[in-house]
Amino acid sequence: MKLNRQDCIVLDAQDQLAAYREKFSLPESEIYLDGNSLGAMPAHLPARMQQAIAGEWGQGLIRSWNDAGWIDLPQRVAAKVARLIGADADEVMVGDSTSVNLFKALASALRLNQGRKVILTERGNFPTDLYIAQGIAELFDAEIRYVDSDEAAVLAALDEDVAVLMLTHVNYRSGRIYDMKKITALAHAAGALCIWDLAHSAGAVHVDLNAAKADMAVGCGYKYLNGGPGAPAFVFVANRHIEDVRQPLSGWHGHARPFEFVQRYQPAAGISRMQCGTPPLLSMLALDAALDVFDGLDMPQLRAKSQALGDLFIRLVDEKLADFSFGIASPRDKELRGSHVALTHAQGYAIVQALIARGITGDFRMPDILRFGFAPLYVRFVDIYDTVEAIAEIMKNQEWNQDKFLTRKAVT
Amino acid sequence: MKLNRQDCIVLDAQDQLAAYREKFSLPESEIYLDGNSLGAMPAHLPARMQQAIAGEWGQGLIRSWNDAGWIDLPQRVAAKVARLIGADADEVMVGDSTSVNLFKALASALRLNQGRKVILTERGNFPTDLYIAQGIAELFDAEIRYVDSDEAAVLAALDEDVAVLMLTHVNYRSGRIYDMKKITALAHAAGALCIWDLAHSAGAVHVDLNAAKADMAVGCGYKYLNGGPGAPAFVFVANRHIEDVRQPLSGWHGHARPFEFVQRYQPAAGISRMQCGTPPLLSMLALDAALDVFDGLDMPQLRAKSQALGDLFIRLVDEKLADFSFGIASPRDKELRGSHVALTHAQGYAIVQALIARGITGDFRMPDILRFGFAPLYVRFVDIYDTVEAIAEIMKNQEWNQDKFLTRKAVT
Repeated sequence: MKLNRQDCIVLDAQDQLAAYREKFSLPESEIYLDGNSLGAMPAHLPARMQQAIAGEWGQGLIRSWNDAGWIDLPQRVAAKVARLIGADADEVMVGDSTSVNLFKALASALRLNQGRKVILTERGNFPTDLYIAQGIAELFDAEIRYVDSDEAAVLAALDEDVAVLMLTHVNYRSGRIYDMKKITALAHAAGALCIWDLAHSAGAVHVDLNAAKADMAVGCGYKYLNGGPGAPAFVFVANRHIEDVRQPLSGWHGHARPFEFVQRYQPAAGISRMQCGTPPLLSMLALDAALDVFDGLDMPQLRAKSQALGDLFIRLVDEKLADFSFGIASPRDKELRGSHVALTHAQGYAIVQALIARGITGDFRMPDILRFGFAPLYVRFVDIYDTVEAIAEIMKNQEWNQDKFLTRKAVT
Repeated sequence: MKLNRQDCIVLDAQDQLAAYREKFSLPESEIYLDGNSLGAMPAHLPARMQQAIAGEWGQGLIRSWNDAGWIDLPQRVAAKVARLIGADADEVMVGDSTSVNLFKALASALRLNQGRKVILTERGNFPTDLYIAQGIAELFDAEIRYVDSDEAAVLAALDEDVAVLMLTHVNYRSGRIYDMKKITALAHAAGALCIWDLAHSAGAVHVDLNAAKADMAVGCGYKYLNGGPGAPAFVFVANRHIEDVRQPLSGWHGHARPFEFVQRYQPAAGISRMQCGTPPLLSMLALDAALDVFDGLDMPQLRAKSQALGDLFIRLVDEKLADFSFGIASPRDKELRGSHVALTHAQGYAIVQALIARGITGDFRMPDILRFGFAPLYVRFVDIYDTVEAIAEIMKNQEWNQDKFLTRKAVT
């Protein structure tokens, strides 16, 4: 039996997380399926940031480092992130970008695993992960071994030369999830350390870094964590490693006694040593406030809704788009799939633009991927229905085939 | 003849920059002399940020990368900074912290000047500059040569081993200014490159990087540029070097074609290669707006006011504090002094706290420095008068000698 729109409205009425949508401020009548690129704005953010800007900065001035607790803000935000990724509060630090944090983690891992010189990764990893690894390889005279984005290929390439295995937990294109626990165990058995990029995991997919015995991880603040554009990223280092970690971005905020102004760098005890310079506080205050949406949220329930949204999308694509040469680039098995679904189509770019013109926002990834992110906190079942209906109409009417949709923009 | 308070009111009435104070939102009746630590908030920031947060993020969502021009924001902010430091717009990039940018610059300089292995600096440099140099030295098997904070000591240490001379233009404690042009020329004659830290210069002191033939520079967005707490920093690379620069934080925003998602890092043409990950946009939008205060401002006039404020402070300290064992740690010659004046006193910490309790904010630097910053855009001559009067009263009454002023806070 085919699903109709009313069935989806019923699913929304039964959804125990439906009320979370009210915690976000979304444009009227927009269907936003790009929360995996930039999370939506929590509704309380403008008022909170007004207070932070006009109050803490404007009136509190330099005193706010003490009086508003800016000095401990990275630790407080980190504790909120830690809960979402199966880490202890003192294993996570927030600040800098994902790229910069990956640089710290990779350098630390190569120093911990001296004598080995190979960084193992997949060539389909997110580009900045590859680029940072290339920068690190040049500095440490290391080698990068690239394999296909496939568990068997990764495991086959683990040998006694591999110092560190660097993988992204949920692939940014396909949405495929690696089995973190299994792969980490096999990497450890081969004598390698594991760094996981959680950019497309944190806040939407079940992550338990400590159950998986992960060594290090990094992740993004502006996707499913909804921290705002360019929100600070996070870095995780397992407690068993932290006192041996030496990361080369040895700025004053990672010093044992930053305000004693001594001449010699001495890393702070614990995870604070992963800090570098003064963090971008306005951006971090936004992330801090955004994470409050997750207070008391049941993460398995969130994951179940994300899976149900993805399953519904795939089912409707099968039902409604069979005539239009779409491929499904994501796993059909919900256990192997993150919180987005990727379609493929030769006219993918123009189809995404035609959807945007109809108020439905997904995104496009080269060369032919249409990516639809299902942020379970604010995407409704009926949104999925309306999106697939809209794609079907766009295809039937050749609505995508207009100059304005075919011309590329700077950021796609 | 001694100056009185009315004389200072007259000086303010004659000040052609007096109207700029209205562009800032300062607490009622506060005298804020810590703009060299955290600049005051430009009055238009709350409204601008409200629009950026609720409008560009909340309503524009991912589209704002194109529609609100987020993708070019670092370049636009950099062009505003470039004008203030004697650089061309395409020689400056904004993003990351000062520490991270210094890391990029030092690594680049060591790669440009291969065969030489010494980083020459002063042991009295700002700590994070030293710490970052230590991190770089370990990575590049380089050596740091520390000398006294003194032009003659620096010049005497320049020899054929020095790859790069790293100095802070205005010393964070004493406020002493190095002769950038002279020192850079002598460093070049010795075959070294020069990196200048402009943290306490940009926005208050005359800087002309290209007239001095500086090679690279870094600087801070949250001091005299008033970009907000932890505002992104900037990095300058002279045009003659940029195509040869390879910085190791090779993130995707520094790639030649970041949205083509190719596997191999290729640095962008020009200064964009100094970018790394996604910048903290909310913090950068605040800096962008804050820099508009400098539109059309005559920088020599700004510098002249800064010097006049410092001269007045020193004159009043001489007149009113002679009995209280203060030292003056800053140059008396205004041409050798930045935009703050440092006093020394054994009870410096408590005196600063007693001043804060009276609504006068300066700051304390270990072990005995009382630091008073004279941000010429919003500090008045009468503020200087009232501050020195207050110090005199605090000393006469032993007002500083209370437990609440003697106990140290986390951030001083």
